[in-house]
Amino acid sequence: MSYDLPLAAIQAAHQRIAPYIRHTPLLPLPPLRDDLPSQLRLKLENLQVSGSFKARGAFNNLLQLDQRQRARGVITASGGNHGLALAYAAHRLGLPATVYLPATASEDREGRIAAWGARVIRYGAAWDDADAKAQEHAAAEGLAYIHPFDAQHTLEGQGTLGLELLDDVPELDCALIAIGGGGLIAGMAAAIKQRRPGAWIVGVEPVGAASMRRSVEAGRVVPLPEVRTIADTLAPRAVSERTLEITRRYVDEIVLVDDAQMVAAMRWLWIECNQLVEPAGAAVLAALFNGAVRIDKYAHPVALICGGNAAAESVFAMYEQAAGNNREPPRGYPTAN
Amino acid sequence: MSYDLPLAAIQAAHQRIAPYIRHTPLLPLPPLRDDLPSQLRLKLENLQVSGSFKARGAFNNLLQLDQRQRARGVITASGGNHGLALAYAAHRLGLPATVYLPATASEDREGRIAAWGARVIRYGAAWDDADAKAQEHAAAEGLAYIHPFDAQHTLEGQGTLGLELLDDVPELDCALIAIGGGGLIAGMAAAIKQRRPGAWIVGVEPVGAASMRRSVEAGRVVPLPEVRTIADTLAPRAVSERTLEITRRYVDEIVLVDDAQMVAAMRWLWIECNQLVEPAGAAVLAALFNGAVRIDKYAHPVALICGGNAAAESVFAMYEQAAGNNREPPRGYPTAN
Repeated sequence: MSYDLPLAAIQAAHQRIAPYIRHTPLLPLPPLRDDLPSQLRLKLENLQVSGSFKARGAFNNLLQLDQRQRARGVITASGGNHGLALAYAAHRLGLPATVYLPATASEDREGRIAAWGARVIRYGAAWDDADAKAQEHAAAEGLAYIHPFDAQHTLEGQGTLGLELLDDVPELDCALIAIGGGGLIAGMAAAIKQRRPGAWIVGVEPVGAASMRRSVEAGRVVPLPEVRTIADTLAPRAVSERTLEITRRYVDEIVLVDDAQMVAAMRWLWIECNQLVEPAGAAVLAALFNGAVRIDKYAHPVALICGGNAAAESVFAMYEQAAGNNREPPRGYPTAN
Repeated sequence: MSYDLPLAAIQAAHQRIAPYIRHTPLLPLPPLRDDLPSQLRLKLENLQVSGSFKARGAFNNLLQLDQRQRARGVITASGGNHGLALAYAAHRLGLPATVYLPATASEDREGRIAAWGARVIRYGAAWDDADAKAQEHAAAEGLAYIHPFDAQHTLEGQGTLGLELLDDVPELDCALIAIGGGGLIAGMAAAIKQRRPGAWIVGVEPVGAASMRRSVEAGRVVPLPEVRTIADTLAPRAVSERTLEITRRYVDEIVLVDDAQMVAAMRWLWIECNQLVEPAGAAVLAALFNGAVRIDKYAHPVALICGGNAAAESVFAMYEQAAGNNREPPRGYPTAN
């Protein structure tokens, strides 16, 4: 089977979802320090609604459901960000939603998904287990199953981020993009390469969940025996035929990063621009700092900060405790009006 | 004594500091939900170098020192963000810097100041104690003392944020701005009102450190007997004659927020756009949520997210521990190249 992702379909998706998503900013210049090539720009997609690029694919799917499907509702399985995006998009568009989560998904993310009114069901140790169960559930109840990466509408939605990036940086000559199931990189690479064939596209994968790299090397989808990374949003056991084929066509290089490198890159982003992101969001920077990829020769490289949904509960808990201890206003002058 | 802050001086500061500071973005539309008036824009000054607007005043001071002063170095006292901004600006321009911190400043911030090569000295329970000691130190060693808010060059620097905001939102008709010592609001209000006299300027102060509101009500600088708020960057015991006079001239209204309201607003910002900010950065939103200020009648209101230096260490510590437990790459497929 041959998969295609025509530019026109991505452009149509871009128009379709525009009212619901944000055109996210590049981090403004100058950089804080000189530890990366100064021409590198960061695209802050962590500012997207629902905190990641996944909102693009989610809206692009939901906006194309017919009335009957909208009424019955949607279902998915997600390590976190796709589930959150789907729950948010369903809330925004007034659809019922069900989200299966594997054990690896953080409680913080579960809480955020439930807060948008979605039904959350925990199932299985890894995403693939939750996914199989969600597909059963969808078939049994006639719900529209929205795949996090192996679906044409999902890829077209993620591809809109490639078009947006070319609006931001028309001379783009290198893009660094994280890989989980491959939906983001397949969509973006297809959009970018059809517009700028000379741009170099680098994928970044966790060493403990290198399902795309292994499949590219093997020339076929190779499921991993296990995944082992803190980047839970980059951790499906297998990519799909669809994302593999499009990645092979459009992506130039895949490099790996380990967990400690991702956390170090998270710290760097916090110092550089006060952006707290999840490990996946910092993976592209980890690949620069660990030397896996060199961008010196590019004049207009961009690293995509793809998601920001870090587990930040400990910070709020600490401030809440401090606020509780301080709530008594001081004597002698006016309290809040 | 009469204080003035001419537009031309702010414009000159804007040109002077432009190579060193960032033009920070507005949060792109659409909003995530409908709980605030949809015309409200958020200005994300937490993306500024060093994590707050303070970099503007710091660079504007340091860039006007003569050679002798640059060689001897600079000194200040700061609850955190001004100290961090000064340490960063001194690092960037190659000057030695000393920063006095009161006990209330977080360890996270102390570490960040020291990381830029500044000498950090802890002194006193509140900012005013540290400030008195730093001024002594400056006189004894002939260092240039850079006041966090009571200095013309500091106010001109902060005023550049008002000009920038008018570039972003030319029809600005309402701005919400947090108040600590008053340097930010005095600088911004002077810039905005001289360009758009009809814009409504609202100051927001912690109920436990309402030094500006009390002084405006009294018509003179009134030092508070104590300050009591988790917003350590908004907590000097007294504003200055300079910031009071300019605030009285240009600021239309001052409203109060309590600590719990600021933490709730921090959570909202995290959900809305994955921005983790310090309590001061969320104060303006707290004033909307607690009803202290109404913006419904304005067509182009902006809330300034003034600083992002939250104490986030617990998040990184948690991820580092997880990464340590996961560092062993799985068997059977390629490790990082």
